[in-house]
Amino acid sequence: MENSCEFAGKYSNDVTLKELRDRLAEFAEARGWDQYHSPRNLLLALVGEVGELSEIFQWKGEVAKGLPNWSCDDKEHLEEQLSDVLIYLIRLADVCDLDLGQAALTKIVKNARKYPVPAHQTT
Amino acid sequence: MENSCEFAGKYSNDVTLKELRDRLAEFAEARGWDQYHSPRNLLLALVGEVGELSEIFQWKGEVAKGLPNWSCDDKEHLEEQLSDVLIYLIRLADVCDLDLGQAALTKIVKNARKYPVPAHQTT
Amino acid sequence: MENSCEFAGKYSNDVTLKELRDRLAEFAEARGWDQYHSPRNLLLALVGEVGELSEIFQWKGEVAKGLPNWSCDDKEHLEEQLSDVLIYLIRLADVCDLDLGQAALTKIVKNARKYPVPAHQTT
Amino acid sequence: MENSCEFAGKYSNDVTLKELRDRLAEFAEARGWDQYHSPRNLLLALVGEVGELSEIFQWKGEVAKGLPNWSCDDKEHLEEQLSDVLIYLIRLADVCDLDLGQAALTKIVKNARKYPVPAHQTT
Repeated sequence: MENSCEFAGKYSNDVTLKELRDRLAEFAEARGWDQYHSPRNLLLALVGEVGELSEIFQWKGEVAKGLPNWSCDDKEHLEEQLSDVLIYLIRLADVCDLDLGQAALTKIVKNARKYPVPAHQTT
Repeated sequence: MENSCEFAGKYSNDVTLKELRDRLAEFAEARGWDQYHSPRNLLLALVGEVGELSEIFQWKGEVAKGLPNWSCDDKEHLEEQLSDVLIYLIRLADVCDLDLGQAALTKIVKNARKYPVPAHQTT
Repeated sequence: MENSCEFAGKYSNDVTLKELRDRLAEFAEARGWDQYHSPRNLLLALVGEVGELSEIFQWKGEVAKGLPNWSCDDKEHLEEQLSDVLIYLIRLADVCDLDLGQAALTKIVKNARKYPVPAHQTT
Repeated sequence: MENSCEFAGKYSNDVTLKELRDRLAEFAEARGWDQYHSPRNLLLALVGEVGELSEIFQWKGEVAKGLPNWSCDDKEHLEEQLSDVLIYLIRLADVCDLDLGQAALTKIVKNARKYPVPAHQTT
């Protein structure tokens, strides 16, 4: 079923966190919304979107990977909700003057040190 | 103060969501963690990280943009926590076979139509 | 302003957690909803309601105690949202066979030991 | 297994929301914490506790009602975490001058009107 949905299939190669950050900053500025985008306002907006994301999954019991049997509409709704969380996360990092992409790479390296690959799984 | 922190200043140009997705998928696979990365498990892990992010801000009252007066340690802790939210968000999208970067771009375009720039602010 | 709102003023003396638990259990059973009220379903529903609660506060900046200048409608909306969080919290504890009221009392005693009252504030 | 845990079994009859509210208000006042208990600070603390609650359930897959096979320690940890959410919810309602117990009763009545019991289930 999922192959018939509009965006399913290939993963976009080149969407950078910087591009999203810049577009979102321009978006807010053009609408005069910068004044509302304080760190705690954005954090609470993020929590609100995480709540909506949870609502999508709340009455479903376990959900299998790949979302078999979900309609394209349901998948699109989920894509929008995941995007809303990402959007506020990027804005929050931006108004805090933090580099989210670099931070994520650094955290992955740190996690790799913290959780080394078990020897028997490296071959 | 923030200029003396390690990562402050320039924003990394080229960290793509696809790169992060791929590295996180390899990370999970190498450690045999794929079996735990069901959509709802990852969603609850995301909620857990959002909780830790909220704890950073919980007793501070209003926080100004740019985090003046925060120590480098506090900023680094915030970077790590923002990263943890991003990491689980990317993993959740991935196990749902959704293209988070493309979805975010699509959502920004949709939002721009929903909230047009006021005429007097376009010049 | 708040004095003119319907429920403002006196605090109800006798609403017990057990009464709420029993009414909510009957509510679910009468509608055949028990089958959906698994622990993780209820937890995600709780997260959803916490998200809606956050939305009420998200663009407001700091909010003063007592909610001065909030309309009765806004206060009523907040009461409903706080109630929704409480309702799912009570249901979650119930389906886990835990005694939420007793647990809260126990936790308060534990917290009192963990954070003793400073000597100069006890007189 | 659950019968051997300390608090399992009987549900306390008489823990009222007002009692918990009063004890928590005294607790905060005795420690000089009132100054930190603004609505948004408490809301973010609540989100933090919901995050910790989610962490308890995050890697477990579906969890059955009654928590079969959970140890007493795990149940006690869950009781504490549910309590922490309740504590901040009650504090938040209190500093907003709202009557949480009455609000919950009102919401249950409203929900009963919104979702009437299906005719064939009323016998």
